Amino acid sequence: MAANLPVYVYMDHSASTPTDARVVEAMLPYFTQVYGNASSAHEFGRKAEDAVETARETVARILNCQPKEIVFTSCGSESDNLALRGAAWAARRGGQGNRLVTTPIEHSAVTKTVEQLAALMAFEPVVLPVDREGLVDVEDFANACGEGAAVASVIYANNEVGTIEPISRFAALAREQGVWLHTDAVQAAGQITLDVQELGVDMMSLSAHKFYGPKGAGVLYVRDGIELIPSQSGGSHENGRRAGTHATPLIVGLAKALEIAYDELDAHVAQYRTRRDHLVEGILSRVPGALLSGHRERRLPSHASFVFDGVDSSRLVMHLDAKGVAASGGSACKTGNPEPSATLLAMGYSRREAIGGLRLTVGRQTTEADVDYTINAVVEAVEKVRKLSGELTV
Amino acid sequence: MAANLPVYVYMDHSASTPTDARVVEAMLPYFTQVYGNASSAHEFGRKAEDAVETARETVARILNCQPKEIVFTSCGSESDNLALRGAAWAARRGGQGNRLVTTPIEHSAVTKTVEQLAALMAFEPVVLPVDREGLVDVEDFANACGEGAAVASVIYANNEVGTIEPISRFAALAREQGVWLHTDAVQAAGQITLDVQELGVDMMSLSAHKFYGPKGAGVLYVRDGIELIPSQSGGSHENGRRAGTHATPLIVGLAKALEIAYDELDAHVAQYRTRRDHLVEGILSRVPGALLSGHRERRLPSHASFVFDGVDSSRLVMHLDAKGVAASGGSACKTGNPEPSATLLAMGYSRREAIGGLRLTVGRQTTEADVDYTINAVVEAVEKVRKLSGELTV
Repeated sequence: MAANLPVYVYMDHSASTPTDARVVEAMLPYFTQVYGNASSAHEFGRKAEDAVETARETVARILNCQPKEIVFTSCGSESDNLALRGAAWAARRGGQGNRLVTTPIEHSAVTKTVEQLAALMAFEPVVLPVDREGLVDVEDFANACGEGAAVASVIYANNEVGTIEPISRFAALAREQGVWLHTDAVQAAGQITLDVQELGVDMMSLSAHKFYGPKGAGVLYVRDGIELIPSQSGGSHENGRRAGTHATPLIVGLAKALEIAYDELDAHVAQYRTRRDHLVEGILSRVPGALLSGHRERRLPSHASFVFDGVDSSRLVMHLDAKGVAASGGSACKTGNPEPSATLLAMGYSRREAIGGLRLTVGRQTTEADVDYTINAVVEAVEKVRKLSGELTV
Repeated sequence: MAANLPVYVYMDHSASTPTDARVVEAMLPYFTQVYGNASSAHEFGRKAEDAVETARETVARILNCQPKEIVFTSCGSESDNLALRGAAWAARRGGQGNRLVTTPIEHSAVTKTVEQLAALMAFEPVVLPVDREGLVDVEDFANACGEGAAVASVIYANNEVGTIEPISRFAALAREQGVWLHTDAVQAAGQITLDVQELGVDMMSLSAHKFYGPKGAGVLYVRDGIELIPSQSGGSHENGRRAGTHATPLIVGLAKALEIAYDELDAHVAQYRTRRDHLVEGILSRVPGALLSGHRERRLPSHASFVFDGVDSSRLVMHLDAKGVAASGGSACKTGNPEPSATLLAMGYSRREAIGGLRLTVGRQTTEADVDYTINAVVEAVEKVRKLSGELTV
């Protein structure tokens, strides 16, 4: 993409990925040719319905579940909302527990939904501690589930620091207590297993645009037997779990993208790892005082994240942008009013450190040259930001 | 579209429309080239954000409102959910009225959401009567708004019978009582005015795939000053009103489709009207006992709907499909277990009549030959269904 810059390196694949050309090709007929409403009882409707159901089978195969356990949504945030709201409301209606067990390193679609359920409907949030690497404590989790939980939600791989949680252990503990476990697998998809039998989760959220699929398409896996109350009500689409006309092209695209991602998983992951390791090594060795945030081994293959003490990450991202590198801060950079990252604070970093988070995430098109360019840009940008802000390097 | 039939005529444009080729062309670069997350603070993000904000300005121009009053959603059902839930929860939080005022001819996204709010949160539904033509009584509406209403929702043009409600009168009455009025304008878009100043509504739902845009994209207009509580919470997208990564291609496509629909409105509407009138005249004159349902004049230009006494509409739709005509019944045809249409029942039709609804909706590609073919197919199919079911014609 020409950005009026001689070089522009995209290092923000955790924020979004380009749609694979094969995915676009697969979607195209569903805009102009197979345009029926998948709920219509005629040839045009049936063709659309066939495409939706074929996509559902593809997704189910990769998740190792039944097609009827797949709910198509419009994005990962919607999936998180449906899981949390749907389970909490069902628990309320069933006279079950009132607690919503979660962690301080969830995506905002989980955090804010729990907050709203607490504010509007008097649910009780329980937020578990995490350690310095971003791992949630297993014992704390078991205890929290034992005390009247309606639902628990633990992120599979964190978006900011890339740490992969031991989800199968949480799932086993939740099941022992009869508590449903939801996991946000939005960042994990396309990099690690999504086998729900192996993971043991009851609900799992995915978002297509994180694995080279289209924006506007998500999945919520819901284990057979769980009856969620729909958070988007209306027509009886998706077995009454999500109202709204099926977005046939997007659903087809999501399935195609997931299929490609898992057919080609080993090759992509190997390449991510090589590039990412090179990036981490370069930055840690050349930037004074740089720390790798998150877990060193238990992290997403594409994901590098750092803390630069004394650096305001929103400025750092701005300087990197000016140098032609698309990166992401740990905090809400766009406001221009940097807040420390809640994730880093929860992990035990100081406020000063928690303002200095940087995320760099490689992708399929990332080259060695891109990585070298990025390392140099980060070295220069950190130095510049430190100099401008009058901070001393460590 | 080849449907393995010598002729296949699509007469179900109210269910969905093909995406305009110009819309597809406008969307394409946003899949593979401008693929940044519109929330990202770098060049890739800004380009996506620019596209989203340009689309917002286009939509606002056609609705005659401010860009900030436009909320992009994933579909019409989501827009309806956000309007109803968001307003009801806000009213609850603000200690305002508890009643949800609506009609028996709303889309299920309104009806089912009101039902759920009543069941889960003890809101009180008030369902107003409609007359034989599907018009909601203005006086009843005024009375209902005066008695502690949280929000009112009246469909702009009904999906089943095409009747256009006098929305501006309801809006004026609601405003007098300080009640927010939402309208579902999903069927109206691309056929009649969407000028929210002229209509006077506080909230209005649109769905792109009804006006030759992509499936998976909707709009909720929310008048400045109304603070909805988000029904999909998480990130601060859409000014905190709808969390979830912007689906840039779909948003661009929605705006392009709306622009085309209103740039070319007069020509399309004139053609819809000609084809539709021909269709209505042909069917009423040739099918014994056929009735036009809905209002004769105050109806959508593309929309024809009938009641055939003694005919099970799900069978009729099946026979029409076999003859190569895509049509829609008034009832939930797909189940094979015909229920009378709630809309027709509310309008005063008998149960026997309310099973015999048929909707035929013309579109941009509908030709005179298509209409002639459809008339013949309906004549034959009604005769066949009546013969098979042993019913006498009227």
